[in-house]
Amino acid sequence: MRMRNKPWAMEYLSSNSDIVDTEMAYAGKIDEFFETKQPVHIEVGTGMGTFITELAKRNPDINYAGIELDKNVMIRVLEKVREMELENIRLLLLDANRIKEYFNENEVDRVFLNFSDPWPKKRHEKRRLTFKSFLEQYKAILKKDGELHFKTDNRGLFEYSLVSLNQFGMNFHEVILNLHENEPGDNIRTEYEEKFSARGNLIYRIKASF
Amino acid sequence: MRMRNKPWAMEYLSSNSDIVDTEMAYAGKIDEFFETKQPVHIEVGTGMGTFITELAKRNPDINYAGIELDKNVMIRVLEKVREMELENIRLLLLDANRIKEYFNENEVDRVFLNFSDPWPKKRHEKRRLTFKSFLEQYKAILKKDGELHFKTDNRGLFEYSLVSLNQFGMNFHEVILNLHENEPGDNIRTEYEEKFSARGNLIYRIKASF
Repeated sequence: MRMRNKPWAMEYLSSNSDIVDTEMAYAGKIDEFFETKQPVHIEVGTGMGTFITELAKRNPDINYAGIELDKNVMIRVLEKVREMELENIRLLLLDANRIKEYFNENEVDRVFLNFSDPWPKKRHEKRRLTFKSFLEQYKAILKKDGELHFKTDNRGLFEYSLVSLNQFGMNFHEVILNLHENEPGDNIRTEYEEKFSARGNLIYRIKASF
Repeated sequence: MRMRNKPWAMEYLSSNSDIVDTEMAYAGKIDEFFETKQPVHIEVGTGMGTFITELAKRNPDINYAGIELDKNVMIRVLEKVREMELENIRLLLLDANRIKEYFNENEVDRVFLNFSDPWPKKRHEKRRLTFKSFLEQYKAILKKDGELHFKTDNRGLFEYSLVSLNQFGMNFHEVILNLHENEPGDNIRTEYEEKFSARGNLIYRIKASF
């Protein structure tokens, strides 16, 4: 999600430190960041935040941490969180490579990846959020039986991810190759999902655990 | 593949015992059935035999065993083998549940499944050729690093198979979700593949080992 650069973005995010953590202030103690201690689900790469804010609204008994590296994008998510008056969502300005530093072992119940950047060139394989180094991060913080839920419309990325997750030794629970045919009631469409589905792209989803 | 019943089918196949084994005559000694001792690849469910006869023609240094339970269908494959004067292909009239009885351990280099019956009803799961009891059979006869190559246009069966193979502990080497886009040069289209692709169906393929 490319956004116009806002020179004031960092200052603005920092001044909303009740919702946004820009400096790993709650690393190792995420529970203290939330109002209530309850299960934690994270989304790696929130984009505009439609998915995670809608999830948070539907499930007040779960805490959601949205991880995003782009400050300009995060401002939009912050605005949504304020508008919707959600108390069970916090935003972490964080590189996905540092997830393991932020969370404790066995602390997270679920990891969501939605329409992650496909990085189609082979030499960029290491940047894909389903590359083994990222899977290693998710594994470290997820509880036993915690699940990774990944969806995308990018066929190359999904083909790659099926092999990558399998080779990492993950257990597949469900694979869907056309999510919008018989769309599950619990599916929340992201902005990308609406856009690419309208273009006729298939939406793929996998649920798996370590 | 539903064919008109030929009452004389069994007699005809039995009279072609240089190519067709109707009675497990070569069980445990498949090498004796072929002219030359060389690697053995099998196809479980040959259908009309386009795939396996074309493969056999392209790869004279490999022995192909085509497994099929339908006598009427097998006659068509036999006719192709005669016409094409192939010496590296033999046909086994055999229930796929008995593969392990027919072959020795570590005897087979590759197993092909093409457009297998999807058996879409949950209560027929055990009949799908990627159900765990069949995977157990393939595993028993395949060499270490021997591969299973499976393709289908049936989305439900492919989704099921990705989970089934993964849960069985198989290692994925490649997953393709639209085989005819950038079609690999080594792909041989089966009769079903031509027919269903022409209708606009996507063709899926996986290569995996145990």
